[in-house]
Amino acid sequence: MSEAAVNVALFGAGRIGKIHAGNLVRQPGASLKYVVDVNAAFAQDLATKHGAKVVDAQTVFDDPSVKAVVIGSSTDTHADLIMRAAAAGKHIFCEKPVDLTIERARACAQAVEKAGVTCLIGFQRRYDPTFAALKARIDAGEIGTPELLVVTSRDPGPPPVDYIKHSGGVFKDMLIHDFDIFRWILDDEAQTVYASGSCLVDPAIADAGDIDTTAVTITTRRGRICQINTSRRAAYGYDQRFEVMGSDGMLQAGNVRPTEVTAYGRKTVGTDLPEAFFLERYRAAYAVEMAHFFDVIATGKPARTSVKDGLAALVLAEAAAKSFREGKPVEVGDHADGKLSDVLAAVGAAAQ
Amino acid sequence: MSEAAVNVALFGAGRIGKIHAGNLVRQPGASLKYVVDVNAAFAQDLATKHGAKVVDAQTVFDDPSVKAVVIGSSTDTHADLIMRAAAAGKHIFCEKPVDLTIERARACAQAVEKAGVTCLIGFQRRYDPTFAALKARIDAGEIGTPELLVVTSRDPGPPPVDYIKHSGGVFKDMLIHDFDIFRWILDDEAQTVYASGSCLVDPAIADAGDIDTTAVTITTRRGRICQINTSRRAAYGYDQRFEVMGSDGMLQAGNVRPTEVTAYGRKTVGTDLPEAFFLERYRAAYAVEMAHFFDVIATGKPARTSVKDGLAALVLAEAAAKSFREGKPVEVGDHADGKLSDVLAAVGAAAQ
Amino acid sequence: MSEAAVNVALFGAGRIGKIHAGNLVRQPGASLKYVVDVNAAFAQDLATKHGAKVVDAQTVFDDPSVKAVVIGSSTDTHADLIMRAAAAGKHIFCEKPVDLTIERARACAQAVEKAGVTCLIGFQRRYDPTFAALKARIDAGEIGTPELLVVTSRDPGPPPVDYIKHSGGVFKDMLIHDFDIFRWILDDEAQTVYASGSCLVDPAIADAGDIDTTAVTITTRRGRICQINTSRRAAYGYDQRFEVMGSDGMLQAGNVRPTEVTAYGRKTVGTDLPEAFFLERYRAAYAVEMAHFFDVIATGKPARTSVKDGLAALVLAEAAAKSFREGKPVEVGDHADGKLSDVLAAVGAAAQ
Amino acid sequence: MSEAAVNVALFGAGRIGKIHAGNLVRQPGASLKYVVDVNAAFAQDLATKHGAKVVDAQTVFDDPSVKAVVIGSSTDTHADLIMRAAAAGKHIFCEKPVDLTIERARACAQAVEKAGVTCLIGFQRRYDPTFAALKARIDAGEIGTPELLVVTSRDPGPPPVDYIKHSGGVFKDMLIHDFDIFRWILDDEAQTVYASGSCLVDPAIADAGDIDTTAVTITTRRGRICQINTSRRAAYGYDQRFEVMGSDGMLQAGNVRPTEVTAYGRKTVGTDLPEAFFLERYRAAYAVEMAHFFDVIATGKPARTSVKDGLAALVLAEAAAKSFREGKPVEVGDHADGKLSDVLAAVGAAAQ
Repeated sequence: MSEAAVNVALFGAGRIGKIHAGNLVRQPGASLKYVVDVNAAFAQDLATKHGAKVVDAQTVFDDPSVKAVVIGSSTDTHADLIMRAAAAGKHIFCEKPVDLTIERARACAQAVEKAGVTCLIGFQRRYDPTFAALKARIDAGEIGTPELLVVTSRDPGPPPVDYIKHSGGVFKDMLIHDFDIFRWILDDEAQTVYASGSCLVDPAIADAGDIDTTAVTITTRRGRICQINTSRRAAYGYDQRFEVMGSDGMLQAGNVRPTEVTAYGRKTVGTDLPEAFFLERYRAAYAVEMAHFFDVIATGKPARTSVKDGLAALVLAEAAAKSFREGKPVEVGDHADGKLSDVLAAVGAAAQ
Repeated sequence: MSEAAVNVALFGAGRIGKIHAGNLVRQPGASLKYVVDVNAAFAQDLATKHGAKVVDAQTVFDDPSVKAVVIGSSTDTHADLIMRAAAAGKHIFCEKPVDLTIERARACAQAVEKAGVTCLIGFQRRYDPTFAALKARIDAGEIGTPELLVVTSRDPGPPPVDYIKHSGGVFKDMLIHDFDIFRWILDDEAQTVYASGSCLVDPAIADAGDIDTTAVTITTRRGRICQINTSRRAAYGYDQRFEVMGSDGMLQAGNVRPTEVTAYGRKTVGTDLPEAFFLERYRAAYAVEMAHFFDVIATGKPARTSVKDGLAALVLAEAAAKSFREGKPVEVGDHADGKLSDVLAAVGAAAQ
Repeated sequence: MSEAAVNVALFGAGRIGKIHAGNLVRQPGASLKYVVDVNAAFAQDLATKHGAKVVDAQTVFDDPSVKAVVIGSSTDTHADLIMRAAAAGKHIFCEKPVDLTIERARACAQAVEKAGVTCLIGFQRRYDPTFAALKARIDAGEIGTPELLVVTSRDPGPPPVDYIKHSGGVFKDMLIHDFDIFRWILDDEAQTVYASGSCLVDPAIADAGDIDTTAVTITTRRGRICQINTSRRAAYGYDQRFEVMGSDGMLQAGNVRPTEVTAYGRKTVGTDLPEAFFLERYRAAYAVEMAHFFDVIATGKPARTSVKDGLAALVLAEAAAKSFREGKPVEVGDHADGKLSDVLAAVGAAAQ
Repeated sequence: MSEAAVNVALFGAGRIGKIHAGNLVRQPGASLKYVVDVNAAFAQDLATKHGAKVVDAQTVFDDPSVKAVVIGSSTDTHADLIMRAAAAGKHIFCEKPVDLTIERARACAQAVEKAGVTCLIGFQRRYDPTFAALKARIDAGEIGTPELLVVTSRDPGPPPVDYIKHSGGVFKDMLIHDFDIFRWILDDEAQTVYASGSCLVDPAIADAGDIDTTAVTITTRRGRICQINTSRRAAYGYDQRFEVMGSDGMLQAGNVRPTEVTAYGRKTVGTDLPEAFFLERYRAAYAVEMAHFFDVIATGKPARTSVKDGLAALVLAEAAAKSFREGKPVEVGDHADGKLSDVLAAVGAAAQ
């Protein structure tokens, strides 16, 4: 390891924190110095595994040797940690969403901009080899002008109702990724968003004020169209596909299977179910994402998924929620928080 | 051929008329007696091929030996021919749509009901082996309760603009089939319809007052959801797929390929493009459909795709067109012609 | 129907005879005049269905109005009927194999040649849309020089042991088709044949002196290689695939499925089993084959699968049987009947 | 890292050595202490990267703190290093083949047995997730009794002719893996081996006394059958598939693709070519293999791919080479080195 190690602090030692820690320590020159978690046992286990130290947040921000932080703690801590990290001049890798309110997310974006640090938001799908290859092929002109995007996004099963109550609702919690995919793949911004949905999986989700099945349609400023369909429960597992049709062809991103075994039995010719859930499905994506973060730190080039992308996806989630509540399409400029372009302009740059 | 031949008259000797004639003459006991077409040469060619006679419409309706008519002539002739055939007590096989107006379509349905004849509307997709097998598996409970339907329906290329001008618009001309698929697969009726769309393929289509790319969302009375995406042009050919997710699994209907050749080259592993267009894609469906028509005539059992299905699909097409014009979702009961249930009730039966 | 009808007599009113009759009557200008079968009831049923007459063989050969015969009766009748038909100047469509002995098959070939009639042998696989498309792509140079052919050929279940006893053995009865595929696809003749095999499916097959599982390797004069694997029983149905690798790529011919439904369940993502058996799998091939026969009659051009192809496949089957008996590879010129080229030369033409 | 680190020395700092080093340092408790390579620069680069030291072989064997060696140097060094490592009491991970002669391979097996150390031979395919899952499903009885195995094994392009000259021939160099797959999947030993082959790719390979295209048939003691087809050049890349049919079904192991993108263009529906070559295709397998090696060291359980498996595969390669030379099948007991069972018995254990 070279002498100029990049010392990193990790917030959150849960499921996703462990993934990030594992990828982090594989980066040349990276050193996991601190682990912070409200659950002391989780923190200690992970710290021991990687030779790090358990500390509180303030210690991290006070230590000038810490160059970057990785935030994988609960959503309600994100904005505060981002703003403190930015103020302390540390580069930031933060899980999505930035925050559940546009106001605070915008404040984060402004703090990051002012501090001049990197703030990569964990939209890991953009780093997935299949999705990234598809995007590169669009950019290379393989299908001409993209026109129509269909996104299928279904979880294997709903989270506990208690989680749902604090999730910010399905649009912010689950579709936030799909809204980011939309912006990335169609390379355009939303004009209108129309969301419908139902509670078909579990009545307890309705009791919690949420829905579990959604269908969203976005039309863009250039007239392109995106349809998103989601469910909190797919009996066959985690379903993550999309297809984009352009003037010269179509590209589909299919599910990833654990193996390439095909079984010919007496009733069917069967292949594997898709990878079970996001930790398995996006294993490679998480690794690429972390490598990108360190590359951004080393080179100063912009992060592929910035805090502004996080903010823009949140604006769409709010618009979708509003559309669903009101039963009609929402001009993205319709809702209380102003047009997306204004929101983004206010933080100093265009969305793209 | 047995003595009790079923004499049939065919209206329309064009592309689809030829298909129907070919299937018709293969039915045991069927005899193509007359061909009627405004284009005398077309009529004569087809009549000669099958040993039939070219006559005018009135001759058909006046001939008591004619038991059934097959209507494959242009859309503007459908309603008149249906009503005259019904009045003459002849069974009817009519291409979709019944008519471009709900009023006339409803009048057809009433005339058919009053006459007590069969009126099969040519929603041939329901007879396609893949689609029919999928539906049978839903009905057998394989995926539990259907919840979410995604329909992809794209033509290889747009028709001439002159055709588009008289087509009744993309919702009635093209999506009419998809609306029928929706009702059939989800086995439910629409509550609201939201349609968005763009003209992305050819500005001349916009000049003709139509669009070429659409995205429709239907929510049903039971909270099920359907998303339809269509385009007048897919560079890779005719794309006809749908998938339905239920509480216990998902079923997909894929495209049909001409051959099962897979080619491993230096750049890709390639398979055939889908069958070129509807005549090729639905070849088997047209044959099954005609056999079903003769079975219906022989047994008196109800047609799988009745004039009421034709009317119901038209109501959805009108609702979609209205939604697109007004930029907001339409309650199916919202529009001038009354609720779908009322429309169907008015013609004497439930939608199903 | 035009006045110059082609009158045809059909020998054999069983399973395959019915298929051929159905295809035959769809040919423009074809008329099924006679049906001949030792089973009078079968003959009468089929004759009635198609308006034909039941007669004995001699009546067929004595009737100068009969232009062609279709032979779908049992294998032991083929050679006699071919020779009588040839002598009577009638065109011949005969199911494979020509005969179980090379001597008689050669005599057939000579009789056909002398009479100057067409004798199409029913190697229907060459007419299958998938296989024919693959062959056309090889011929167009898509994979450069073909080098390696792997043929998979498995039946859903073994025939009755009583059938096996009179079948001539698995190489003549079952692999005869695969030997023809080999010659057609690699466009080359065998130098050596090596056959191994086992009785793994049913010991009664071994008791009958036969085997049920085989592996054959053929090397050609130009050094190309073919591997064939077969079984009398595949639990998952009828398996008919092959792949050919060339200097510039590979082409695979896959199984054909009844529908394009894909089912995502709790355990697997499943598609249909292959078409059940040859009548279903090669339905299109039988139709194309019959159309080709009538085209050959009408135009005088050579049949795509001639009696010489039938003879050549039989020579390979004999060589394989000998190789299996002796446990070593057989030079195709090794066995009692002389080199393949001599055999073919003796009947007046090169194999191709 | 715990105090009881497993110190390891790596022989060979080339392509495969780097892969093994990368996987080795990820094992908990593993420490790469030494790197040995005739190419000093290669050795130093790899040593520097992982904090190891460059030494000569003797230093490794003299250092009692070295618990295991990984041998990824050229084939001609394998046997000597295995015997020296065994004598020094070190556990061994050695790339295939053990040696090019049965005598020396047998001596290695005996030395390993006498020393009581582990000797894992790098048949990495057994560790591949797809292949291992398939094998587990056979073992679970999913396809009943395995009967027929078809192995397809094709390289993207031939190695330099100079390499071929010293490779021991295609059967030892390339098919050695396929012979191991055969023994593993069919869980049986060979009775006879028949090999045919051609030089179709490059005449220089024939000039070097070798062939580039092979077809091997193995029959087992229990009458099961295996066909292997190989080529030194597949225009479409690295092709590694096999399928095994049993009494109750079939399992196929397909190629692995870099991404799950499907592209619908104007000519074809295309997916990715297979992973480019073995380093990419078996990336996961190499990692699992190394983890297994450390598990074996830690637990003392037998290695999944032992030196006896290496020896057994070599016996088959020799038999295949002899069969090809003599143009006839070879009883595995036929050749100079005695029956496979004797060979394996001589080293103290049954093949399995």
